[in-house]
Amino acid sequence: MKENGKSGEGGKASVKEEIRTYRERLTMQQMLIREKGLPIIVLVEGWAAAGKGMLINELISELDPRFFNVVSPAIKPNREERYPYLYPYACAIPENGKIMFYDSGWMECAVRKFLRREITKEQYKDRIRSVNEFERQLRDGGYILLKIFLDISPEEQHRRIALLRSDRETEWRVSEEDIWQHGEYDLFRETYEEFMEKTGKTVEWHVLNGEKKKTSVRDALKLLVGAIDKALEEGRFCGKPFKESFPLRKMPKLSEVDLSPCMEEDEYRDELKRLQKRLGELHNIIYRKKIPVILCYEGWDAAGKGGNIRRIARPLDPRGFDVMPIASPEPHELARQYLWRFWTRLPRSGHFCIFDRTWYGRVMVERLEGFCSEDDWKRAYNEINEFERQLTDWGAVVIKFWIQIDADTQLQRFNDRQNTPEKQWKLTEEDWRNREKWPQYEEAIDEMLQKTSTENAPWYIIESNDKKYARIRTLKIVIEALEKACGEHM
Amino acid sequence: MKENGKSGEGGKASVKEEIRTYRERLTMQQMLIREKGLPIIVLVEGWAAAGKGMLINELISELDPRFFNVVSPAIKPNREERYPYLYPYACAIPENGKIMFYDSGWMECAVRKFLRREITKEQYKDRIRSVNEFERQLRDGGYILLKIFLDISPEEQHRRIALLRSDRETEWRVSEEDIWQHGEYDLFRETYEEFMEKTGKTVEWHVLNGEKKKTSVRDALKLLVGAIDKALEEGRFCGKPFKESFPLRKMPKLSEVDLSPCMEEDEYRDELKRLQKRLGELHNIIYRKKIPVILCYEGWDAAGKGGNIRRIARPLDPRGFDVMPIASPEPHELARQYLWRFWTRLPRSGHFCIFDRTWYGRVMVERLEGFCSEDDWKRAYNEINEFERQLTDWGAVVIKFWIQIDADTQLQRFNDRQNTPEKQWKLTEEDWRNREKWPQYEEAIDEMLQKTSTENAPWYIIESNDKKYARIRTLKIVIEALEKACGEHM
Repeated sequence: MKENGKSGEGGKASVKEEIRTYRERLTMQQMLIREKGLPIIVLVEGWAAAGKGMLINELISELDPRFFNVVSPAIKPNREERYPYLYPYACAIPENGKIMFYDSGWMECAVRKFLRREITKEQYKDRIRSVNEFERQLRDGGYILLKIFLDISPEEQHRRIALLRSDRETEWRVSEEDIWQHGEYDLFRETYEEFMEKTGKTVEWHVLNGEKKKTSVRDALKLLVGAIDKALEEGRFCGKPFKESFPLRKMPKLSEVDLSPCMEEDEYRDELKRLQKRLGELHNIIYRKKIPVILCYEGWDAAGKGGNIRRIARPLDPRGFDVMPIASPEPHELARQYLWRFWTRLPRSGHFCIFDRTWYGRVMVERLEGFCSEDDWKRAYNEINEFERQLTDWGAVVIKFWIQIDADTQLQRFNDRQNTPEKQWKLTEEDWRNREKWPQYEEAIDEMLQKTSTENAPWYIIESNDKKYARIRTLKIVIEALEKACGEHM
Repeated sequence: MKENGKSGEGGKASVKEEIRTYRERLTMQQMLIREKGLPIIVLVEGWAAAGKGMLINELISELDPRFFNVVSPAIKPNREERYPYLYPYACAIPENGKIMFYDSGWMECAVRKFLRREITKEQYKDRIRSVNEFERQLRDGGYILLKIFLDISPEEQHRRIALLRSDRETEWRVSEEDIWQHGEYDLFRETYEEFMEKTGKTVEWHVLNGEKKKTSVRDALKLLVGAIDKALEEGRFCGKPFKESFPLRKMPKLSEVDLSPCMEEDEYRDELKRLQKRLGELHNIIYRKKIPVILCYEGWDAAGKGGNIRRIARPLDPRGFDVMPIASPEPHELARQYLWRFWTRLPRSGHFCIFDRTWYGRVMVERLEGFCSEDDWKRAYNEINEFERQLTDWGAVVIKFWIQIDADTQLQRFNDRQNTPEKQWKLTEEDWRNREKWPQYEEAIDEMLQKTSTENAPWYIIESNDKKYARIRTLKIVIEALEKACGEHM
């Protein structure tokens, strides 16, 4: 491994002095970071016993504990198993103005799983792809991301492990995993190097020599101070939109959708009963096979999302599903990358999660109301496609419904709500304001449907002028997708 | 068990009609609940295979999924083990205007652990006490709490378990635990009954007959609708303050504290080094023995909390501690009982958590600024003592520091901050405003120290006119407490 981030060896006294100088600068910077609301991620990876904890401790020693945190999400027991690969890391990103130190992270997790053959070569490749997507999304969203790998030789690792094991107070720190890594040192080195090569283009890696404590601390401080200085000088980064090709389904324009389909009461009752029974059976299988299911609802105000969701939820075991109503983001959510509040709401595997409104707010309301920049929402199509692919990589069934009505039907329902006391709460001033922007919304929605109906997470436009027809149609779509996922047929 | 909540058997048709009527009322109520911001908890306990999930499903079937949720915290794998007994339940309380259904909860958890002999008779008693405290705190905080126990006979349980096991699709639903419960039916019945008797005074239990599906649904709906009607009529409940006796340490008044102690630089350096080394060693043991440690910092602005916390954090393994800076509550935190945002921030066992400001805000700033009612803050002394006892029941070391300076020293430090560019951010208008209320704060703090310095979670007033002295003193207190907890001596 090529070591970088170095600034000459120098005498021992001068290194100590440099450390002091950098620490002072970092302390000053912390105030500016807060002022400017810059979020910073420092990822420290490296060999077992390389001194990752020590290094982080040295970096934070003069920082104000209110404005940084240290997480070691990789070692949270049994957690990752029921969630997507990047889940623990995505949930731990700092809010604006804070520094988050990751004591091991997405690299160690992917490499270990791969070398233990818990994931296939193909899945490992997907993980590397996800890492590049994740890091780019953070960078493009204005996060400063510093990645450090702490390197030691096999001889040094041997020495340190032996030392730890010789003392009753410290022997528990050496895990079976660590000993196994040491035995497979060459294999690990090769894999680490390959991982860094494949994930070093968007955000570069810095390999530091873990055998020289003082200089590694100095070098890490220098890198951090330098990265912050650069960001303070250049201002918060905002990535440009770009187009990656996802296999997309061709979607009609909303204006082309025939909204006449409807269903008689009798047929509706029979179908509803039959389909709900089937969905209940499938939920059992889903639960047992630990398949995560994510249903996304978007649609015009008064299109009938709530009633549609209730018909899906009815036959599900309440232990195994959640409905997530998505409102305007709260302050602590606005202070983080926009997908964070969805990452943190993901279901455990085997569970259903029904999102009542979703991350697509980014390219609808946030776009139209100017809550984010043009670059932000234009970038979002691709970022969302990547996010959803990470969900389906994990094994999730992801289905997205656009509940469609025409403007006349909406007006009729608004008036109905206004005139029915127990429905009045459902109608707000905002609904009327949004209605005035129908054409702009329609344009944004058409673009969204064109750009994000991927093969793995497709959109379905649900004709909902007749609510009964709409409910039966969504039920059928969900059942078909679940049967496919379970390898079952009706 | 005496069944209650019944309203006569009636014909089958009329029960169906009653259910429809209650459901309609509940749907109407949901709108009012939202308007008034009432939070509602429905706890459904009962025998394995009694139909808890079915009952909840029937209760929610017409509700708007945005305003309720179902949790089954008892069955979250491996979670409770590293957290206090009530943690999963306290973390899941609903926000104002929403209904939370608990599919099994604190009763099942306590009873199972006790009958499996995973907790002692003594611990079981403590849990029953905690439950009464927890429920009273929720009730006094304006929560509507409905507790249902779904009862079936041993014959019926036998029949249902056999039925579930006979079908490949459902056999996985019967756990080893369930079979064990069925074998020990009489023992369970006795324990359930005793538990309900001992936890039925503050919030009563309703035993429903799980063998009659329709009437149990009707009765549960009737209870829920009735409880909501009562709350809508009477307005949000606010409990009166009351005094439970906790063994308290006698605390001096702040005005009596001698702030002259100080320490020379040389002695400070030596002591700091020695004590930090020792604290680092103890952290190893704490981690290994899985003892949770909770350090609470309160003190005047500019008293030196931040620097003091840094000296404690310095020798700790960053994997094993978190500093939680507590600012004003966010909207989603204000929408729940005031201790919720602390429950959700508790460390896992074996970890340190340092709170930079704490739940004592309730009896200081919230009291003085009128952010809660007089009854609210007066009740809080006792509620906080109970909360902290639940933490020490769990095995936590809880230490509370009041970092004390005099008004002259504060003024000097404020001026110093104002005149030093890199410290200016630490000083806000609010600090000056708080300073004007020094006498009122001093009175509130004196009362707080008198009423909440319990033997299990004592306060230490730290003389901090000399910061060096203060740091050494807190280090010594922490070390002494940890040595005691580890059964080690220096």
